[in-house]
Amino acid sequence: MSSVFGKIFQISTWGESHGKGLGVVIDGCPAGLSLSEEDIQAELDKRKPGQSKLTTSRKEGDIVEIMSGVFEGKTTGTPISLVIVNQDQRSHDYGNMVELFRPSHADLSYNLKYGNRDYRGGGRSSARETAARVAAGAIAKKILLDLEGIKFLAWVCQVGTISAQVPDILKVRAEDVESHPTRCPDREAALQMEQAILAAKKSQDSIGGVVQFVVQNVPAGLGEPVFDRLEANLARAMLSIPATKGFEIGSGFEGTKLRGSEHNDAIFHSEEKGFYTKTNRAGGTLGGISNGMPIWGRVAFKPTATISKDQDTVHKEGEASKLKAKGRHDPCVVPRAPVIVETMAALTLVDFYLEQRARGHLFK
Amino acid sequence: MSSVFGKIFQISTWGESHGKGLGVVIDGCPAGLSLSEEDIQAELDKRKPGQSKLTTSRKEGDIVEIMSGVFEGKTTGTPISLVIVNQDQRSHDYGNMVELFRPSHADLSYNLKYGNRDYRGGGRSSARETAARVAAGAIAKKILLDLEGIKFLAWVCQVGTISAQVPDILKVRAEDVESHPTRCPDREAALQMEQAILAAKKSQDSIGGVVQFVVQNVPAGLGEPVFDRLEANLARAMLSIPATKGFEIGSGFEGTKLRGSEHNDAIFHSEEKGFYTKTNRAGGTLGGISNGMPIWGRVAFKPTATISKDQDTVHKEGEASKLKAKGRHDPCVVPRAPVIVETMAALTLVDFYLEQRARGHLFK
Amino acid sequence: MSSVFGKIFQISTWGESHGKGLGVVIDGCPAGLSLSEEDIQAELDKRKPGQSKLTTSRKEGDIVEIMSGVFEGKTTGTPISLVIVNQDQRSHDYGNMVELFRPSHADLSYNLKYGNRDYRGGGRSSARETAARVAAGAIAKKILLDLEGIKFLAWVCQVGTISAQVPDILKVRAEDVESHPTRCPDREAALQMEQAILAAKKSQDSIGGVVQFVVQNVPAGLGEPVFDRLEANLARAMLSIPATKGFEIGSGFEGTKLRGSEHNDAIFHSEEKGFYTKTNRAGGTLGGISNGMPIWGRVAFKPTATISKDQDTVHKEGEASKLKAKGRHDPCVVPRAPVIVETMAALTLVDFYLEQRARGHLFK
Amino acid sequence: MSSVFGKIFQISTWGESHGKGLGVVIDGCPAGLSLSEEDIQAELDKRKPGQSKLTTSRKEGDIVEIMSGVFEGKTTGTPISLVIVNQDQRSHDYGNMVELFRPSHADLSYNLKYGNRDYRGGGRSSARETAARVAAGAIAKKILLDLEGIKFLAWVCQVGTISAQVPDILKVRAEDVESHPTRCPDREAALQMEQAILAAKKSQDSIGGVVQFVVQNVPAGLGEPVFDRLEANLARAMLSIPATKGFEIGSGFEGTKLRGSEHNDAIFHSEEKGFYTKTNRAGGTLGGISNGMPIWGRVAFKPTATISKDQDTVHKEGEASKLKAKGRHDPCVVPRAPVIVETMAALTLVDFYLEQRARGHLFK
Repeated sequence: MSSVFGKIFQISTWGESHGKGLGVVIDGCPAGLSLSEEDIQAELDKRKPGQSKLTTSRKEGDIVEIMSGVFEGKTTGTPISLVIVNQDQRSHDYGNMVELFRPSHADLSYNLKYGNRDYRGGGRSSARETAARVAAGAIAKKILLDLEGIKFLAWVCQVGTISAQVPDILKVRAEDVESHPTRCPDREAALQMEQAILAAKKSQDSIGGVVQFVVQNVPAGLGEPVFDRLEANLARAMLSIPATKGFEIGSGFEGTKLRGSEHNDAIFHSEEKGFYTKTNRAGGTLGGISNGMPIWGRVAFKPTATISKDQDTVHKEGEASKLKAKGRHDPCVVPRAPVIVETMAALTLVDFYLEQRARGHLFK
Repeated sequence: MSSVFGKIFQISTWGESHGKGLGVVIDGCPAGLSLSEEDIQAELDKRKPGQSKLTTSRKEGDIVEIMSGVFEGKTTGTPISLVIVNQDQRSHDYGNMVELFRPSHADLSYNLKYGNRDYRGGGRSSARETAARVAAGAIAKKILLDLEGIKFLAWVCQVGTISAQVPDILKVRAEDVESHPTRCPDREAALQMEQAILAAKKSQDSIGGVVQFVVQNVPAGLGEPVFDRLEANLARAMLSIPATKGFEIGSGFEGTKLRGSEHNDAIFHSEEKGFYTKTNRAGGTLGGISNGMPIWGRVAFKPTATISKDQDTVHKEGEASKLKAKGRHDPCVVPRAPVIVETMAALTLVDFYLEQRARGHLFK
Repeated sequence: MSSVFGKIFQISTWGESHGKGLGVVIDGCPAGLSLSEEDIQAELDKRKPGQSKLTTSRKEGDIVEIMSGVFEGKTTGTPISLVIVNQDQRSHDYGNMVELFRPSHADLSYNLKYGNRDYRGGGRSSARETAARVAAGAIAKKILLDLEGIKFLAWVCQVGTISAQVPDILKVRAEDVESHPTRCPDREAALQMEQAILAAKKSQDSIGGVVQFVVQNVPAGLGEPVFDRLEANLARAMLSIPATKGFEIGSGFEGTKLRGSEHNDAIFHSEEKGFYTKTNRAGGTLGGISNGMPIWGRVAFKPTATISKDQDTVHKEGEASKLKAKGRHDPCVVPRAPVIVETMAALTLVDFYLEQRARGHLFK
Repeated sequence: MSSVFGKIFQISTWGESHGKGLGVVIDGCPAGLSLSEEDIQAELDKRKPGQSKLTTSRKEGDIVEIMSGVFEGKTTGTPISLVIVNQDQRSHDYGNMVELFRPSHADLSYNLKYGNRDYRGGGRSSARETAARVAAGAIAKKILLDLEGIKFLAWVCQVGTISAQVPDILKVRAEDVESHPTRCPDREAALQMEQAILAAKKSQDSIGGVVQFVVQNVPAGLGEPVFDRLEANLARAMLSIPATKGFEIGSGFEGTKLRGSEHNDAIFHSEEKGFYTKTNRAGGTLGGISNGMPIWGRVAFKPTATISKDQDTVHKEGEASKLKAKGRHDPCVVPRAPVIVETMAALTLVDFYLEQRARGHLFK
């Protein structure tokens, strides 16, 4: 099941970068949710290219259409089909991309797996594929917000060697993130990141970065040990995003350097909050189950593989060659990534939420 | 499906730490594989406690019995049931663990999810659960070794702030790893790690660490984009191991600091090797599909939550209390973790391998 | 997973009767299959209404468009999205169907499950939904035909109390089936069936029937005991077709009246045929696994629930009422059902075929 | 997933007829259910052989042991492992069963699929495998009874050509079924069936039959159209029972002979009952969803394949031979089948019940 995600709220995505379009079928969305195309479009607009000089100047309108599963403004419980028709379907000149494998792209591995590939704009391996996920994620987010007030927020916390300083990750607001094209809420770091991205772009190069996410108001009890631990399925969800190389929940790799007495989160209880911890190195999950504290973590994105500098590579028949990529591309993917990280967190949590409804607290 | 893993080679594990035993049912193992209890026992012995003064002094024999699915020394294609009977089933005094929630353990989250828990030795949330995985992983490893020569190796690369220096990860041998109880192949670092672990133990504390893994001889074409990317399912597999907080494939978080021209792996071709890259920052996977290069990555383990120092916590009815853990525990989990990391890599890859057999290169 | 079918060749269908359209996403189709819209259209045309006076006079063009997954005439291994846009999207007058529950329709059960329903033309519960299945089935059939020469054929063997006489089910040809609008290859019975259907239509009533299917050239070894037996998954596939009430494999209910010595299929062997049986009461499957003999069985369809006669029913608020259905409908569904039965057999077998490729005969 | 059944309440069975034992792991059982070994044993005892002269005289104690997932008399939400150790593990003389394929058994098809088979007592293809299902089914039944009062009852309604007359299937009581070894509640028919079975036995032959089932107190809204229709998954569940050849829901094949006006179930409503139908030809399901009426249907069982009469068959190398089965076997399987039919209905419904809890009526 390569392009299918989820068990109860299950999505099946499709589409290639330069094909007729992209889309997703959502099977298992509960009936009765108010849903319009605008709800979904708002999320897609955060992902689309051409938002600033930091991202590719390609234009992709990404206009979504609901084809089924919604009647009189509400979901019916039947499959929801969302389609995004590609607006620019002119034939392009793909030049030597047809015959050369781009380094650190999926060209070669697709060819070795499938025997062939749709080379137009990267085909299915293009990050454009994530538009369909974001469309489905908009619905997942809406369910969790409407029912439990669960809120997802992600932002850029690192570009190259520049790190943001965020004193309290629970206080970052969506408008802080959206206030700068880097999507870094620390304005000082944001300005440095911007310079670093523009410098990479100018030297026909690219640069990597890290996205941080926080999910608030998550009820305790979500996650299905032992293999479907909350953090395990989040890790899978995040590493399924193109260009990702790492995932941390809570204290992550830095936490390995601590002693237990430094790392453990002492437990408290109050009338108002119930059980809680003051520190949250766990990242909101213990034993694979949410404990009621915010869920937070980080996702590593490598530098964009497409660069305009000359690179060594080989022709599909094996002979050595030089590649000079044409076309427009993002010098750094992370400014467009936060909504995708939020999407994957939402798709993961909505499934756990529904699964816990199925079995949780059935017997008194 | 909390305790079920895999799609074609599918395992279902069961068992609590201090219950009658643990086990696993493997459904979908190909017929005709030579298999004996010794094949499985050898892997289990790498995981069992009491191997050195660095690990808990608890004794768990972990003797495996094949209950079904093997006839005349070969698998029959029907489900293989493996059972490990707990040898010590005496009743214990669990003292205040019954009523207090241990900080950074799963006690509270299990209670909030299930309404109750088997508190004996941590019940299902105990890392003892991984014995059943290792038993199943032994079979996965054997299939991949017998058919393709695929080899799995993991070792400790960091304890606390001490890091191993390994000049060429492809040259580390199993005997290098097994030659020291830390399971770190860099002898100098191993000795320092040993001191760090013993120091933590002496101060009634614990310490974290990182495990590195390498898989060699992996054919190109494994992994199912977009959601079942090779690295995504590896990430999920690794983060399903108790106490893990992070996962990296290839260049990981460090790679985010590089520019594309520094990070990209140039492609080459030769008669003998076919397509290959000299560098391997990708970690053997591009676009979610193995590219024929070794697969490598790292897994972060937090410091053991169980420590003997006094800790603040709460009683299950909410009143504040002090916890002083009794009993024997590992001051650092990573020396026993490499075989579990190898296991999860093998369980992930065997499934991708069989799935690729199903659909790969069907039409000429 | 309500609208998802299959494990390795997995389809996800969507669409309501009078919505914007219908479609299916196929995830897991092997790469390299030659595929055009014509291949799929040919199958859809067998299902579409308005083919004769025996079926509804509604016109549904059912023109399929391939949106993804095919490049330069061949499948790429990525998801194939097929869309059938509804041509007639005018608003209709649904009259009292909005507020009355039609007897023996899904109106009431949908309302009880989902809290509401898309009442336009039956919404998702309309048999129009099967168009998406037939589109996916066309691909499944093509894979099995191209690779193994597997052929599917279904026909009407009973309408009301009239049964066809077919001396040798292996000799029925597709052109025999298509030669009469009833799709019954026994011409004498076909004429009687035609009269029975027209008589039912004339009296504003409907009539039921039975479809028989045969699959030839099926290799031995398909099917996954114990729960995914070949006949079990066929049974599920067939009973998922709207209006079905029963399924038989091989000797079926009649076979229960025999003694073992009469029912058993003696086994033979020849150089040319390998192992075979002369009789085939098993229906080509033993122990849940194909044995190399043709697979055959029967599917029962109830009389169409929509009739023009007055019927007792209730208003959605509970008060007693009379329903007189308007609109055009099939007085008997079986003449349009054979291609759907073939479709469900093909979708079942392609999955078993690919699964057997994954694990079968791996070790020598 | 051959031996795995269910999505939310998921079971994984294992074991061969003459191996070390049989068992099942249940993953996803809700926490808090009161459960003891006695609860399970009571169901197993209905299935075990040697209950009368109508069944095989083999003795199988079938004593179940709960290995995990239950603590202090209640389920914990973690996997429940049930083991039935084979009491008679002496080596047997399997004679010519090693080298000859028994007609209408799975011997040949297992060999063709897996390359080999455990020939001892039929190995995995033996109906003894159903003991593990019945053990899991006992838990499914208990959940549905405790929470909703859902009751399952199955009985023998036909043996050979003898049919039971049951005026009202809703009034049959478990004690009526258990009052005669045939498990037919119509005493007159039961006596004739008994004679038919003994006559078959005397002539070294066997005889087939049909089992009827009824499920009462099923809430409306269970079943997941379009592919996971209630009747579709029931059909699969029933056809996964060894020796089954057919399935009917409600009016079944007989209903195909009616006109719509005769077949439709008119809908009524009352304060006390809510919506209901007086007739129930639908069998309690419309559009794949339970409508609140009792669910009922029938399952066809072929005559036992093992007979003592001489039969033509072939040696595994292909040469023609004669088989004369030794050993003890059931001359008719249906008297032992009702509990298995109930089991498969319960395993199907518990999964639908939990799935409906996940998504049903979430939004007001």
